[in-house]
Amino acid sequence: MAVFTALDEDELAAFLQAYGLSSDATRTPLEGGVSNSNWCLDFGILSPALVLTVIEPPIARSELDFVFAFQRHLDAKGLPLAAPLGRSDGSLWGTLAGKPALLSPFLPGTVAVAPDSRQAGQMGELLARMHLDAADFTPRRSNPMGLPDMAAIVRRLDPLAIETAVPGLAADLASAFSEALDDWPQGLPAGAVHCDLFPDNVLFAGPRLSGAIDFYFSCTAPFAYDLAMTHAAWCFTPGDSVFREDVSAALLDAYARSRALSSGERAALPLLARVACLRILATRLRDWISPPEGASVTAKHPAEFAQRLRFYSGDRGARAFAP
Amino acid sequence: MAVFTALDEDELAAFLQAYGLSSDATRTPLEGGVSNSNWCLDFGILSPALVLTVIEPPIARSELDFVFAFQRHLDAKGLPLAAPLGRSDGSLWGTLAGKPALLSPFLPGTVAVAPDSRQAGQMGELLARMHLDAADFTPRRSNPMGLPDMAAIVRRLDPLAIETAVPGLAADLASAFSEALDDWPQGLPAGAVHCDLFPDNVLFAGPRLSGAIDFYFSCTAPFAYDLAMTHAAWCFTPGDSVFREDVSAALLDAYARSRALSSGERAALPLLARVACLRILATRLRDWISPPEGASVTAKHPAEFAQRLRFYSGDRGARAFAP
Repeated sequence: MAVFTALDEDELAAFLQAYGLSSDATRTPLEGGVSNSNWCLDFGILSPALVLTVIEPPIARSELDFVFAFQRHLDAKGLPLAAPLGRSDGSLWGTLAGKPALLSPFLPGTVAVAPDSRQAGQMGELLARMHLDAADFTPRRSNPMGLPDMAAIVRRLDPLAIETAVPGLAADLASAFSEALDDWPQGLPAGAVHCDLFPDNVLFAGPRLSGAIDFYFSCTAPFAYDLAMTHAAWCFTPGDSVFREDVSAALLDAYARSRALSSGERAALPLLARVACLRILATRLRDWISPPEGASVTAKHPAEFAQRLRFYSGDRGARAFAP
Repeated sequence: MAVFTALDEDELAAFLQAYGLSSDATRTPLEGGVSNSNWCLDFGILSPALVLTVIEPPIARSELDFVFAFQRHLDAKGLPLAAPLGRSDGSLWGTLAGKPALLSPFLPGTVAVAPDSRQAGQMGELLARMHLDAADFTPRRSNPMGLPDMAAIVRRLDPLAIETAVPGLAADLASAFSEALDDWPQGLPAGAVHCDLFPDNVLFAGPRLSGAIDFYFSCTAPFAYDLAMTHAAWCFTPGDSVFREDVSAALLDAYARSRALSSGERAALPLLARVACLRILATRLRDWISPPEGASVTAKHPAEFAQRLRFYSGDRGARAFAP
């Protein structure tokens, strides 16, 4: 349940007025979402339903402009997502309860808990289109969770606590970090990417991908890194992290049909997938070992991505990305 | 599962070409639906998903024009539904496997198995808007399941079989039919109505009504009859048919906020609701007592609507419709 902020009716009315909207809407809290508060606003059967989002920390306000502009850019290209609506003064967000707040169209759909190859194919196509469409998007944002950031998080953790959480992981982390820092591929095609396309952030309405959400980690990074991150997030069974070759093939084939991968990108994918695992492991280990104060969301166990890191370090991981 | 017709690829390609569409679509059979075959057609992430419907008997082809024109009329007014797409030659349907076939937009959403008052409020608003918007829709179609039709179905059933299915029902049916035939209210406002707005025919995407489907029973009838039919379908718990006063109030209040009910309509509602129960009872009894050959759908037991008929014959039924 993701409603952390109480709304003041007068303040909400003023907020909606900035969009030219009346406050005469039915309001339903929306479940899901890890850190923001979301409500569905319904203005009657003839008007499109909207989602009101109040952004909770930690994203800096200065970074929201990049995130929202990127969504508007992709929306203008016809990609399925819920881009923030513009206000009467042209801005894309306002303030509620002292926090950034925005309206976007309500996207119908539910997440695919264990995506199948058909769903992964749609994901691959969307990801490739996003990367192609990023070509003429010029704003830049450095990765808020880049290699130095993850390494800093892991360095602050007690190695004994890491070993207790996942035996053998401390050594795996050390070697993966040193390899990534030494061998990080230079010169790969880069641009604005989503960088957090977990199955929880993609909605399906029936058999059909209805949209990507939660662009708050979007930043400027190699496209292949975004693909590797999506691969690490989609191509394993939830819980026991068994590799799903059919899902992997569907994701990569659909991607490559829309955007060809260079040989440099193909060669970099196993390492980039290991870095994607490191990125998830860093925050999951941190939240597992020292849960954030007042956390209402159950911490996810780091073991899942420890297994995926090992997968991408072996032969099968390398073969997964072969053409 | 509602796919009764196999598709020939060449014939399908020609069918799609009549819409200016390529046959390069992913095809997923859609579940649900009682009698037609439905597939979701996906032409890629940048194109809207479509639904291909092959109409199975018994609807006459001559009646499809009314049904589809009514949907287009409501769609043009902005109501949420999936109106048939037009073909290059302006027609609204073609033929596949010798049966009428059409394309319509894919409507995301799922049915509300046990609608709550919030959902019933949205239903009431939609129903009132449909009735208001029917004002300037001039085609006419007589009710394919009017009072004489239902009476004829019941007359052909063995009274003993009716009594075995639901003890006491034969007498209730006889008195309800004779009352309805004698007292059918004349002069009520009438026009094109859906006449089959069961919860299975209304989709919700999250908290939001996303559209009405299955207009094959739509016809010219009193608006109050459509409201009474919807009331009988929505305002009882599934299975044990306990009256839900909150759902009833939400449906009727939302309806009346958009379209005021005349005193004549209010007074007629209990009788019209009994007729709605008779209509459902007639077909459910027939299918229960002598299931159609090759029926793949489990017949629904008539007891539910026998209870609702009794409810609408008593004081509580009358009170449900009081202003």
